[in-house]
Amino acid sequence: MKFKFSILALLLEVAIIIMFGLYVEYNSSDAAQDALYPYFQDVHVMIFVGFGFLMTFLKKYGFSSVGINMLIAALGLQWGTLMQGFWHGKGRTIDINIKSMINADFSTAAALISFGALLGKTSPVQMLILTILEITLFACNEHLVTEVFEATDVGASMTIHAFGAYFGLAVALVLYRPGLKNKHENEESTYHSDIFAMIGTLFLWLFWPSFNSAIAYDQNYRTIAIVNTYYSLAACTVVTFALSSLVDERGKFSMVLIQNATLAGGVAIGTCADMPIYPFAAMCIGSFAAIVSVLGFKFLTPFMASKLHIQDTCGVHNLHGLPGILGGIAGIIATSIKNENRPAVHLTPLMQAAALGSTIGIALAGGLFTGAILKLPFLGQASDENCFDDSVYWEVPEEMNLPEIPPNNRDGHRSETMM
Amino acid sequence: MKFKFSILALLLEVAIIIMFGLYVEYNSSDAAQDALYPYFQDVHVMIFVGFGFLMTFLKKYGFSSVGINMLIAALGLQWGTLMQGFWHGKGRTIDINIKSMINADFSTAAALISFGALLGKTSPVQMLILTILEITLFACNEHLVTEVFEATDVGASMTIHAFGAYFGLAVALVLYRPGLKNKHENEESTYHSDIFAMIGTLFLWLFWPSFNSAIAYDQNYRTIAIVNTYYSLAACTVVTFALSSLVDERGKFSMVLIQNATLAGGVAIGTCADMPIYPFAAMCIGSFAAIVSVLGFKFLTPFMASKLHIQDTCGVHNLHGLPGILGGIAGIIATSIKNENRPAVHLTPLMQAAALGSTIGIALAGGLFTGAILKLPFLGQASDENCFDDSVYWEVPEEMNLPEIPPNNRDGHRSETMM
Amino acid sequence: MKFKFSILALLLEVAIIIMFGLYVEYNSSDAAQDALYPYFQDVHVMIFVGFGFLMTFLKKYGFSSVGINMLIAALGLQWGTLMQGFWHGKGRTIDINIKSMINADFSTAAALISFGALLGKTSPVQMLILTILEITLFACNEHLVTEVFEATDVGASMTIHAFGAYFGLAVALVLYRPGLKNKHENEESTYHSDIFAMIGTLFLWLFWPSFNSAIAYDQNYRTIAIVNTYYSLAACTVVTFALSSLVDERGKFSMVLIQNATLAGGVAIGTCADMPIYPFAAMCIGSFAAIVSVLGFKFLTPFMASKLHIQDTCGVHNLHGLPGILGGIAGIIATSIKNENRPAVHLTPLMQAAALGSTIGIALAGGLFTGAILKLPFLGQASDENCFDDSVYWEVPEEMNLPEIPPNNRDGHRSETMM
Repeated sequence: MKFKFSILALLLEVAIIIMFGLYVEYNSSDAAQDALYPYFQDVHVMIFVGFGFLMTFLKKYGFSSVGINMLIAALGLQWGTLMQGFWHGKGRTIDINIKSMINADFSTAAALISFGALLGKTSPVQMLILTILEITLFACNEHLVTEVFEATDVGASMTIHAFGAYFGLAVALVLYRPGLKNKHENEESTYHSDIFAMIGTLFLWLFWPSFNSAIAYDQNYRTIAIVNTYYSLAACTVVTFALSSLVDERGKFSMVLIQNATLAGGVAIGTCADMPIYPFAAMCIGSFAAIVSVLGFKFLTPFMASKLHIQDTCGVHNLHGLPGILGGIAGIIATSIKNENRPAVHLTPLMQAAALGSTIGIALAGGLFTGAILKLPFLGQASDENCFDDSVYWEVPEEMNLPEIPPNNRDGHRSETMM
Repeated sequence: MKFKFSILALLLEVAIIIMFGLYVEYNSSDAAQDALYPYFQDVHVMIFVGFGFLMTFLKKYGFSSVGINMLIAALGLQWGTLMQGFWHGKGRTIDINIKSMINADFSTAAALISFGALLGKTSPVQMLILTILEITLFACNEHLVTEVFEATDVGASMTIHAFGAYFGLAVALVLYRPGLKNKHENEESTYHSDIFAMIGTLFLWLFWPSFNSAIAYDQNYRTIAIVNTYYSLAACTVVTFALSSLVDERGKFSMVLIQNATLAGGVAIGTCADMPIYPFAAMCIGSFAAIVSVLGFKFLTPFMASKLHIQDTCGVHNLHGLPGILGGIAGIIATSIKNENRPAVHLTPLMQAAALGSTIGIALAGGLFTGAILKLPFLGQASDENCFDDSVYWEVPEEMNLPEIPPNNRDGHRSETMM
Repeated sequence: MKFKFSILALLLEVAIIIMFGLYVEYNSSDAAQDALYPYFQDVHVMIFVGFGFLMTFLKKYGFSSVGINMLIAALGLQWGTLMQGFWHGKGRTIDINIKSMINADFSTAAALISFGALLGKTSPVQMLILTILEITLFACNEHLVTEVFEATDVGASMTIHAFGAYFGLAVALVLYRPGLKNKHENEESTYHSDIFAMIGTLFLWLFWPSFNSAIAYDQNYRTIAIVNTYYSLAACTVVTFALSSLVDERGKFSMVLIQNATLAGGVAIGTCADMPIYPFAAMCIGSFAAIVSVLGFKFLTPFMASKLHIQDTCGVHNLHGLPGILGGIAGIIATSIKNENRPAVHLTPLMQAAALGSTIGIALAGGLFTGAILKLPFLGQASDENCFDDSVYWEVPEEMNLPEIPPNNRDGHRSETMM
């Protein structure tokens, strides 16, 4: 991978810097945007700490989870600035301010969700290519949804979560690895890797109200989005705990559910977060998202892997895909019940449905196309047995590179192979 | 535990959603509250990351610490919204804005402190019940302190810290387990679990100025509260390091003290945080809190466990109880020295003392009552030997479930039983 | 160490409290400062979580990294308040507000950077002395740079980063340990210690825009500083990944580079962060910083250790020293190209160069002097074999104190000595 990765990364960075030199300027004319800085920082933490640590649950893939997450996001926010700027820009220049930085961070989230579906099975070179392609299509779809359909999606249930999930699942379908049909021995967590993942869960959970409100129209809408998201997540969490115990034969909680399904309420409330649907409705949406997400992890992910040949490492379908669709549907319902008018925008259920449909369509088509490119032989995928293993791409401390313990020694000492 | 926990959690969530539907509305009339959002987010991080990770120090109880902490807080903030709303509400509705969300988060802190005293010895079902009962009583006492006595307690030294600690200690007394008189083998830390706990310590320490200032009367009081808390904690930390070395026979630092006693300065400055007592006085209070807390951990906790039959897992008495009382006393002294008048409030040492007394009285009585309920046999407590062990309530990765290593193998391989 | 440390720490704290009592007052007259509170909190997290966890990469030195970091910062922010107050103060009093708290946190950063160079080789007593001496000199130099030379250094590339690095390297030269010429067996990471360190990296990376903008002249300058830092860091990160793979013979990423060199872009953009140099120029500076930093870690640090007798544990020269100088040079160039005038200040390349020169000169001289004091025999340094080992100064859980595994058992079980 040595030269391929380095050369591609450097070429991309040089090209981006040149484009920044040609097009990008400061825009400090809208001083009201400066008050968004705390919201930006919350989103920023979600992207790098939240997504990064959420994926550290795998026992031998923590370096890649948090490291490649950082790489994708750092590249993606630059590319996203350009892609969103080309659509939103007035005249020849792309104007940068706090709000455009929030949107740049947002655009990386779609790629990071797709990364979750593919975690452990792709190379850094592949992820560079995916990041560029996905964010390009993401910006097109976002333009379509917000400018053409004039739909609302303040928390991006559709444009980020559903888009990122179905894009990633389509790539996973193309890159299907029959050799991973039986569970890979590295595809599991350790006690401490599960606690690391909770760092990601909690920072996502805590700052989700900022994510869903950051680009709201004004402070009034913003406060409603904060309140709705806060209570949706709280209800989602209690229901997730209840169901996690209920679906387990011994009644025990499952870390994978607590780490993921507790967040589904943030995804599902996204589209109508800034609508005055009342907190109890937000809590219903959050509770329903928990149900969908828990059942998805328990039953749908294994089914998709074995029958549909879609291997979804982190279960992004259950955290982002289904709750994202749920959010889109909630938006359709909310706009059909309330005849809500925004400044300069008239929301209709038809346009909300068009937004949902276009998002999933573009995500699936784009994912299949991207998957086909990532499959090109010279990109050099890792073999099945090297999946979920940092040591393929990282220098890892010695303790992880130990020779396997001879079988006659295993019974008494199983733990030492682990950490 | 399977059905009991799930059914109770779902019933509570349904009941709460119904009550939200009946009573809760948005309140965006007070736009000044929106500027509190960064303060809210700091408090939010303290509740979920701060309290959650602070308790991960136990070697086999990290899932429960950070997970059940999340459950209690997610349930508690909904319940706290209702309980505080019933007292504070005008007319039939409960109004929600950023400030009420801060108060909702605050109300969970009392339950989380009590959880710290009981850590490792109660079941999730018991914690659901405790959360509901304690937050109900917390809201009553808070109403008494702030509305009836018109006492000040901006950083909640009394109403949260002392209340949560003495409530928890009273529960611990009722649930006393003679079988844990000799130290349980799981009641210790590992190297990495102690570092995880430092994540909790630091986020509590860093955001404590926000905790103590979030509900201050205006920005002027808020800045004073920030400054006082900042310097109180800094002084407390230096003194804690000094004493930690001093009380150890070999002069070594103790992680349990650094994780906990460094925070006592934030608790103790709480009541008079927003009074202009000057930074040097805040530093004296912080230093004194460090002394009380370190001595408490070193001498009082073992004494209470062996003589008073109060087993306080996290030593909340030393971090929240004693420094909370210290904070209450500091408030009495400060109001007697300075004849301070707040808008619409006249502070008197008598009323401050009444607030402290009522807080401890209600906490102790409420804790004894709650403990008696938690002891009901059908709630099914874990046996003594299953205490401090996640695997009773959680699916844990294999490495933690190993059979004990045969004794003849132990000498050379002691570490592997650990992680 | 028992009494020496405790007595010195207590004496310092008492002295500081007395000085606070004599000189320090609240200053709430400048209400505009209150809007800086979110910036303060970001910086606060960087100092305690960022610096603290960045240094936890060593396998047996995590308690000291995060704990002594906390001690230095808690002491340093008090001392820094006084030192900066003596220079900046008007009349006899030192006024405290949010901005002075930001500056107090800043002053600790210099000492923490020096701590990074010395990590594992000094005692807590030595670090108390270093903190007091370095912050005193830091405040003098900062006064010289900003008041006498009237130079700009908004993100403190020179006054914090270069100063802290060269001060620390000079101390390291004086405290040179020939016995550590061959790599100490504890001077390496483990898999999980490297992930802990990423917590530090990410919080530094994320909040660096706040660090570089916190003390900017007004919101307009602040937004430019945020934008420049954001894009500088993003470009720096992509280039660091590319070079990390390129300089490794097998093309693998190195955690030490990802943890550190990705941050060099934040250091190097510091001096001219608030100048309208355009984002593409910021990205060029960030990319160049990545190159300098990666090459420094790969080639310069080993050379300095073996030939110059400067043992730099964390490689602060590559993260703070060289990028700090690069930032100073960028500031000279930027002021010579743009004839920029600030309110009440006229920036000239000559004065920027004088600032850079004085900073490095004072840092080196101060470091040599401080090193000589720290070498005084009665301060009792640890022996070479006790370096990089928490158990010298901390009570550590049993698993870390195991006797070495007998050699005939090692082959199969190497990992168990580790965690």
